Amino acid sequence: MGRRQSSASVTFEPVGRRAHVTAGTTAMAAASSVGVQIVSVCGGQGSCGRCRVRLVSGAVGKPTAVERDQLDRDELAGGIRLACQLAIRGDVAIDIPAGSLTAAQRLQLEGEDRALKVDPILIGLDLQVEPPTPHDLRSDAGRVLEALGRGASTIGVDALRQLPERLRATDEWSLRVAVQRETGDVITVLPAGMALLGLAVDLGTTKIAAYLVELSSGRTLARAGAMNPQIPHGEDVLNRITYANRGEQERHALQIEAVKAISDLVDQSCADAGVSRKQIVDCVIVGNTAMHHLLCGLPVRQLGSAPYVPATTDALSLTTDDIGLALAPGARLYLPPCIAGYVGADHVAVLVQTVLDSASGTRLLLDVGTNTEVSLLSDGRIWSCSTASGPAFEGAHISAGMRAAPGAIEHAHYLDGAFRVQTIDDQPPIGLCGSGILDVVAEGLRAGIIGPFGALASSHPLVRGNNGDGACVLVPAADAGTHADIVFTRADVSEVQLAKAAIRAGTELLLETAGVATGDLDEVIVAGAFGTYLDIRSAIRVGLLPMLEPDRVRQVGNAAGAGARRLLLSRAARAAARELADAVEYVELTTHTAFADRFAQAILF
Amino acid sequence: MGRRQSSASVTFEPVGRRAHVTAGTTAMAAASSVGVQIVSVCGGQGSCGRCRVRLVSGAVGKPTAVERDQLDRDELAGGIRLACQLAIRGDVAIDIPAGSLTAAQRLQLEGEDRALKVDPILIGLDLQVEPPTPHDLRSDAGRVLEALGRGASTIGVDALRQLPERLRATDEWSLRVAVQRETGDVITVLPAGMALLGLAVDLGTTKIAAYLVELSSGRTLARAGAMNPQIPHGEDVLNRITYANRGEQERHALQIEAVKAISDLVDQSCADAGVSRKQIVDCVIVGNTAMHHLLCGLPVRQLGSAPYVPATTDALSLTTDDIGLALAPGARLYLPPCIAGYVGADHVAVLVQTVLDSASGTRLLLDVGTNTEVSLLSDGRIWSCSTASGPAFEGAHISAGMRAAPGAIEHAHYLDGAFRVQTIDDQPPIGLCGSGILDVVAEGLRAGIIGPFGALASSHPLVRGNNGDGACVLVPAADAGTHADIVFTRADVSEVQLAKAAIRAGTELLLETAGVATGDLDEVIVAGAFGTYLDIRSAIRVGLLPMLEPDRVRQVGNAAGAGARRLLLSRAARAAARELADAVEYVELTTHTAFADRFAQAILF
Repeated sequence: MGRRQSSASVTFEPVGRRAHVTAGTTAMAAASSVGVQIVSVCGGQGSCGRCRVRLVSGAVGKPTAVERDQLDRDELAGGIRLACQLAIRGDVAIDIPAGSLTAAQRLQLEGEDRALKVDPILIGLDLQVEPPTPHDLRSDAGRVLEALGRGASTIGVDALRQLPERLRATDEWSLRVAVQRETGDVITVLPAGMALLGLAVDLGTTKIAAYLVELSSGRTLARAGAMNPQIPHGEDVLNRITYANRGEQERHALQIEAVKAISDLVDQSCADAGVSRKQIVDCVIVGNTAMHHLLCGLPVRQLGSAPYVPATTDALSLTTDDIGLALAPGARLYLPPCIAGYVGADHVAVLVQTVLDSASGTRLLLDVGTNTEVSLLSDGRIWSCSTASGPAFEGAHISAGMRAAPGAIEHAHYLDGAFRVQTIDDQPPIGLCGSGILDVVAEGLRAGIIGPFGALASSHPLVRGNNGDGACVLVPAADAGTHADIVFTRADVSEVQLAKAAIRAGTELLLETAGVATGDLDEVIVAGAFGTYLDIRSAIRVGLLPMLEPDRVRQVGNAAGAGARRLLLSRAARAAARELADAVEYVELTTHTAFADRFAQAILF
Repeated sequence: MGRRQSSASVTFEPVGRRAHVTAGTTAMAAASSVGVQIVSVCGGQGSCGRCRVRLVSGAVGKPTAVERDQLDRDELAGGIRLACQLAIRGDVAIDIPAGSLTAAQRLQLEGEDRALKVDPILIGLDLQVEPPTPHDLRSDAGRVLEALGRGASTIGVDALRQLPERLRATDEWSLRVAVQRETGDVITVLPAGMALLGLAVDLGTTKIAAYLVELSSGRTLARAGAMNPQIPHGEDVLNRITYANRGEQERHALQIEAVKAISDLVDQSCADAGVSRKQIVDCVIVGNTAMHHLLCGLPVRQLGSAPYVPATTDALSLTTDDIGLALAPGARLYLPPCIAGYVGADHVAVLVQTVLDSASGTRLLLDVGTNTEVSLLSDGRIWSCSTASGPAFEGAHISAGMRAAPGAIEHAHYLDGAFRVQTIDDQPPIGLCGSGILDVVAEGLRAGIIGPFGALASSHPLVRGNNGDGACVLVPAADAGTHADIVFTRADVSEVQLAKAAIRAGTELLLETAGVATGDLDEVIVAGAFGTYLDIRSAIRVGLLPMLEPDRVRQVGNAAGAGARRLLLSRAARAAARELADAVEYVELTTHTAFADRFAQAILF
C-alpha cells in the first residue's frame, strides 16, 4: 500500500472558487475540477506556455525544467508558474491573470467592479400617503410631494401618468418613487419595495453588450450580447454612414434596428433575472460617435466627410423614450460625452473605467475594435486618436473567421510540425475568432511559415498552393468540426497586417506627439472584446503592441461596457467623464503628414 | 336749396375705426358705414335699448325722449347714449362697450392686450458661426454654444437633430436659435431671421379656440376655433370621464382627438398667417382639469368619483411632443396649474387675465361654460368653486339651440306682441345661441309669457300647447331661415332654470363663505364665450347674476384664451399663475350642506 495521500485546498482568485484535491494534483487539474477554465493549447505538455498563474501563498512543488525553459528569471521570482506543471503540496492560493482564463471564464468575471462606490443618479424611496377625503382634496401629486418633504421638486409627466392608479392599486396607498437625487424630481413610480434597476449598454459597430444592474447594490443581475443588426447596411462605420445618408428613412431604420436590438437584450436579461423591464429607471449607452448619433437620431452626414465633425460632443441627458426605447415610464438615458468624430462616448467610458482608479503614470490605452481608439496618458495630459483597423480581429474578412462562439479556435500553438488549437467550450474546431487569428500569425512567424513581408513559406509542409492564393492548414479535415481543412491564407495574413499596421501607426504617432518613448510606458492597457482574449505575447510578436515586457500589459476586458456600468452607478464617474473628455487632446490621423509613412513601416512584421 | 351740410368725423373705440359722415347722421349709421357692428334688436327704433355707447368728446344732439326713457339719470350723466338716437353734429369720439358690439365684432377685438409687457420664455437669436476646418474640429453644437457666449447652457436633442443640416443649408453658416431665457438652453433652430411664434389654446369642453402669436411683438397673427371633437363621447365633463374610464384605448382616443383638433387649428392659423408650424416654438394650453388631464394622458378615474382629486395641480412644463403635437422640434408646452378637480387651469388663466392688472377691490368673477367656475376676490383672499351649469348656454339641450354661427339669434327683444331678433351676420334666423336664449327668457319674463316658476302663459297669443309641452313662437316660419317656426319650449325654460340656478347657488355660497354682501361687490366680471355675448340686463333679470347695477358688470370675452396668450407672452404671468392658484381657497359645493337649499331657491325667477 502506498503512503496515505494528504488533501489540500486550492483557492483561485479572482474567480473566487476553491478546490479540494489530493496533494500532487496540478493546479490545472485542480482548476478544472471546480470548473475554472485555464488556457491550455498544448494539452498540458508545458510547451505552449499559456497557462501562466501566480502563486500567492502555500506549499507547492519546485519549478520543473519545462517551467524554467518557458518562464524568465523575473517571472519565476515573481511567483509566476505554469498551471500544468505546478504541483499542489498543501493549502494554496493561486491568482489567475485574465490572459490565462478562457473567453467564457473571463466573461463571467466581467461586471465585477470592486473599486466602485455605488452612488447612482436615482434612488428609490418608499412612501405611504393618506388617501383623500372630502376635507383633504390635495391632488395625488401634492400628497406624494408632501410625503417626500423638503427638497422634493416636481413629478415628471410620465410618473404622473402612473401615479393615480399606482396609489389606488393597494389599500395601503403605498408606493415607491424613483427620485433624481440632484434635482429631487420624481422620475417614475413603482410598487413599494420594488428594486430600481439600471441598464448599461455598449453599442459597438459589430457587437452589442447589455448589463442589467441593481442600482442600490451595483450588483449585475444579468448580461446579454448580440450582433449589431445594422451590419447588413455596412460592416464598418463609414459604410453605415453612407447608408444613412441615402435618406431620412434609411437613417431612421438604423436607429430603429439598434433600439430594437437593445430592447431584445432587455427582454433576455429581464427574463434571466426574473424582473420586469418597467423596473429599469436609468440607462447608460456608450458607442462610437457614429453609433451614438444614429441611436439618438442625430444626422451623420457631417461625420462621413472631412473634417468629420460630430453634431455634438456633449453628454446627453435624455429619456429612453427620446430614442423609442420603452423601459420604466420616464426612465432616464445618459450618453457620455464624445471626443471627436471617430473617438466616441465608448472611449470616454473606457477612460472612466481604466484610468480613474489607477495610480498615475505614463500609460497607453488601446480599445481594439473595428475602429481602434488609442489614448496616451502622461503628466496629466491625454492624447487620443482613432484608426480604422477593420473587422479582421472580430473574425470578419478572414477566410475561416468567425465570432467567439463554441468551436471557435481562441488559441493556437505550433509544435512538432503542426498547430495545436484550443476552442471555446472545447468543441471540435470550426473556425478562428480574433485571438486565434492573432495566435496563428504569431506562431506562423515563429515557425517560419509566415515571412517578414507576410508571404507564406511554400516549402513548408502545411502550406499548399502558390504565394498569392496560398494557404496554411491549421486543422486537417479529419479533426475539424467542419469536416474540411481549416486554413489560414495569404489574404488573411494581409488583413491582419493592415489591421495591426493601422493600430501600430496610431500608437507610434501618439507617442511621437507626446514625446514619449516606448520604454517610458508604465502600463499598456488593452480593452475591447478582442483585446480581452488576445495573447499578449502574440500581440507583441505580430507587432500589434510595441515591444515591451508582457507584464506591463493589462487586459481589462470590455472596458466600454464596464465603464457604462460605472457611469450608471456613480455620479462621480459622470462628472469625471466630462472632465476626461474635455482634457483630451485629439490627434487627427487622416490629415497627419507622417501617418502614411508610419503605416507603411508597420505593415512589415 | 337746403343749407349746405357740414361733414364730421366719428372715431370709434376700442375698435379704432373712423367714419366720415354728414352732420345729422346717427352714430349707429356712422358705425355701420365703416363696418362696425353695434347690437340693434329693434331695428333702430330705440325700444330695445341695446345700442348703448359712451360719448367721449365732440358735438352731438341732445338726448331724445326715447333715450330719456331707456337710460337712467346716472347713465345720461356719464355720457351713455343710444347709438340709434345719437345725432352727430361735429367731430366726435365714441366708445362702444363690449356689450353693445355684435359677436363677430367682439371676436375681432379679442387678442388685444395693451396692458401686457411682452416678455416671452423664449427669444430668437441670430448667429453666424465659422465652418469647421482640419484645424477647427469643434462639434456643430460646440461652435453654436461658443457663438452664444457665456450663459449658454445646453442644446436640446430636438435642436441637435436639426442643427447639422441647418448650419449647412446656406454658405453663410448662419441660423436662428430659440433660447430659453431662464436656462440658456437652445430649444430649436430655425433659418436666420425667421420669426418665433407661439400658440395659445383654450381647450373647452365644448369649444376650442387657438391663437397664433408672434412672440417678439405679442401680435396675434391668426385665430381659429372649432368644436371639441370629443363631444360625441359625452357632452359634459363627467360623461367624458366615464367614457375614458372604459379603458386605456378610449382614454387615449380622447387625447388623440383633442390633439388632432388643436393641430387642425394650427394648420388653419398658419395658412391664414402665411407661416409654418415649424416656427411655433412655445405653446400654452388651458382647459378644465378633466380636459387638461385627458390632453396630457393623465388618468381621470379619480376625477370622476368623490372626492374628485386631480392627479396634479402643479403647472406642467413639457414639450408639445409629450402630447403628440408636432410643432417646431423641441417646442415647449406649458400648462398652468389647476386648482381642484373642477376648477382647472383655464380658470387660473382667467384669473391671470382679469385680476392681475386691475385695481384691488371686492370682485366676483364668473367663467360661464358647460361647467361654470366662480371666484370671489376680497381683501387679498380668493375663494373659488365650480358648478355644473350644463351646456344650455352653449346652445345644447335647447330645442332650437345652436352654436354662435351665422343665422343664430344672438339678441331678442319683445315689442308689440312679437319677438324682434338680431342674428349673427344678419342672416335669416335659424336657431338660438346662448345670448339669444338668455334674452328670450328675460324678455319672456318681462312680457309675462314666462311665469316665476318657469311655466309658459298658455293664454298668450305666441304660446301654443299645454304647459308641459308648451312652446312660444319666436320667429314664424315665414321669417325663419329654416322655413319652420323657431320656438322656445317649457323644457327649454327648465334647462335655463337649472343652469342659472347652479351658477347662482355657487355665487351665493361663495359670498356667504367670504361674508360678502352683493352690495359690497365693486365689480362682477363675466368671462367665457357665452359671458362675452350675453346681455347683462337679461342676465340680471333672469337671475343668473345677482341684482346690481349693470355698470358694475364687466364682460371680458374669452378670458381663458386671452389668459393663455398672456401666459405665452409673459414670464411674470406664469409666476403669477402659480401664486394665484396657491392663494385660492377652494369651496367644494357637492358636499356643502347648504348647496341643495340655495339651488332650490335659485330655480325660481
